[in-house]
Amino acid sequence: MNPPIKTLWWQDNALLILDQSVLPVREKVLKLKTSRDVRQAIRELKIRGAPAIGVAAAYGVALAALNSRTKSPGAFRSRLRKDIEYLKEARPTAYNLFASLDRMGKIVRSDKYNQVAEVKKRLLKEANAIYREDLQHSSRIGERGSQLIRNGMRILTHCNAGGLATAGLGTALAVLYAARNKGKKFHVFVDETRPVLQGSRLTAYELEKTRIPYTLICDNMAGYLMAQGKIDLVLVGADRITANGDTANKIGTYSLAVLAHYHGVKFFVAAPSSTFHLDMRSGREIPIEERPADEIRKIKGVAIAPEKAPVYNPAFDVTPGKLISGFITEKGVIRPPFQKNIRKTLQVS
Amino acid sequence: MNPPIKTLWWQDNALLILDQSVLPVREKVLKLKTSRDVRQAIRELKIRGAPAIGVAAAYGVALAALNSRTKSPGAFRSRLRKDIEYLKEARPTAYNLFASLDRMGKIVRSDKYNQVAEVKKRLLKEANAIYREDLQHSSRIGERGSQLIRNGMRILTHCNAGGLATAGLGTALAVLYAARNKGKKFHVFVDETRPVLQGSRLTAYELEKTRIPYTLICDNMAGYLMAQGKIDLVLVGADRITANGDTANKIGTYSLAVLAHYHGVKFFVAAPSSTFHLDMRSGREIPIEERPADEIRKIKGVAIAPEKAPVYNPAFDVTPGKLISGFITEKGVIRPPFQKNIRKTLQVS
Repeated sequence: MNPPIKTLWWQDNALLILDQSVLPVREKVLKLKTSRDVRQAIRELKIRGAPAIGVAAAYGVALAALNSRTKSPGAFRSRLRKDIEYLKEARPTAYNLFASLDRMGKIVRSDKYNQVAEVKKRLLKEANAIYREDLQHSSRIGERGSQLIRNGMRILTHCNAGGLATAGLGTALAVLYAARNKGKKFHVFVDETRPVLQGSRLTAYELEKTRIPYTLICDNMAGYLMAQGKIDLVLVGADRITANGDTANKIGTYSLAVLAHYHGVKFFVAAPSSTFHLDMRSGREIPIEERPADEIRKIKGVAIAPEKAPVYNPAFDVTPGKLISGFITEKGVIRPPFQKNIRKTLQVS
Repeated sequence: MNPPIKTLWWQDNALLILDQSVLPVREKVLKLKTSRDVRQAIRELKIRGAPAIGVAAAYGVALAALNSRTKSPGAFRSRLRKDIEYLKEARPTAYNLFASLDRMGKIVRSDKYNQVAEVKKRLLKEANAIYREDLQHSSRIGERGSQLIRNGMRILTHCNAGGLATAGLGTALAVLYAARNKGKKFHVFVDETRPVLQGSRLTAYELEKTRIPYTLICDNMAGYLMAQGKIDLVLVGADRITANGDTANKIGTYSLAVLAHYHGVKFFVAAPSSTFHLDMRSGREIPIEERPADEIRKIKGVAIAPEKAPVYNPAFDVTPGKLISGFITEKGVIRPPFQKNIRKTLQVS
């Protein structure tokens, strides 16, 4: 499947990204030339979505490597290890960032390559592999997940788990793209997803571009839709999934899961294996990022609250595995009991 | 208790209101001189909140009466009946509008008054009475509800059920004002309340003015707070309550009630008796207003979604009585079974 969105790509020794902070009003491409540029773009949500952050960070390491002028393998490796730590601080919750940087770190540490030039080449190759795998995994997630979509379904999604959250094809939205390509008809309800509005700004933009019928709602309308029997399935992405199936995802996901549970609506999470952090036993261990108060007090610079209003702004919440019907991964759909089936499906001993 | 907010008041034969559409950035007073002005101000949410709408509409009838130049009681009454119908179309959900206009309509229809001047005088007197009663009812709601507030409680509220939603003292917030005046300490979490942001614009403004400690959150964060054990009580207002306790209130209230139920958190509704529509058996009969799509697609004129994004924008939802712990009214706190206890407490046969 061709990716519907060009989220990020490598060109002329730079990482190009579609600036997600100005969508849907402007389609602006940014050229990131250094690992610092990449870290900054991730922090400022110019590129966001757990898998996309993972891919961008890998290219961030490649950029750090290519920009290095030292000929000494020791100095080079030492510098790159610092660059990797620096990139790890971009955002704390999405596990793909760490999974991706760990892969890059292994190459940096490997004694297979003696020449700096060789390591550089190998690092760029690995970043490209992470990029390609992301597209492949999205495609398989779409394929496997599309079997859950029936004609006439009304599907609720939260935040953006689309092409923009990945290398271009998505997780939750990849499922919808695949289902549509098989000729299935369905309708999508899009939570606007306060405070950063990834639903109204990004998911609505993607669905419009791909001509999938949708309706935009405020986050607080989802329960009322369910009460009216207007939602058949909730489908979201994930930022980190622990060994027991607990799932960190955009703030508001947990409320949706409770509402879906109360109304007997299935709740599925679509994510590649790089989102699973199996060394963590439960969601209690996941660090939850808190973001600036002005994300809530202002929208696009316009005040919508008292200037100094005290604010609580967690960017994510944790949905316990017991509220999740299943995980759609590139290796298959995982159903409860998750403690056992996640390891089994992902083939981790 | 002195009302903390000057929401609306009668002065020099006009209704003055604080324009709620520009708060908290500007404190602007509007002078409404005709019933058309009043209807427009209600439609455009310059004045909102079920009890405040009821009071404003009563003054709308008074204005229509005072502006009439006819000396014929028949023509006068006929004109006023039309004005009342016209005001009824301002908004469909809040019952206080209809309860208030019915009281005004009874005076118009009454054969006790023969002179036009007498009816005019009597109508203004009734509007003033509705205004005063609203303050009294708020004060009693505060008194009775404050007994539910314990020291150290963390209370979640949605939308604005404060002074701005009434003649000046509030319903849900009247409870907090009374508790605070008794020396109780507590913390308020304020849902911003998309799409019109009555929480961040109005409730935060009121709590700041009255120096009650609060934290502003996005609507989709409430569930996560409850999961962390950080909410002890949910306290909201109401737009219409039917005989069985089903309650129409600002969109998002239903989701909060389900979340509170799931987490074992008490859920109270504060409302004067004028919000109860006992001729309606259940919430299924309540008309739910749908508002313009641009309330969701734009904030203060700034686009936050594709320009033509299809939108569903119900302004209210209905919370079934079974999810409600109790109603705080001026006549006492009503607990289940509501079918029986609402009539008993409100002394309706």
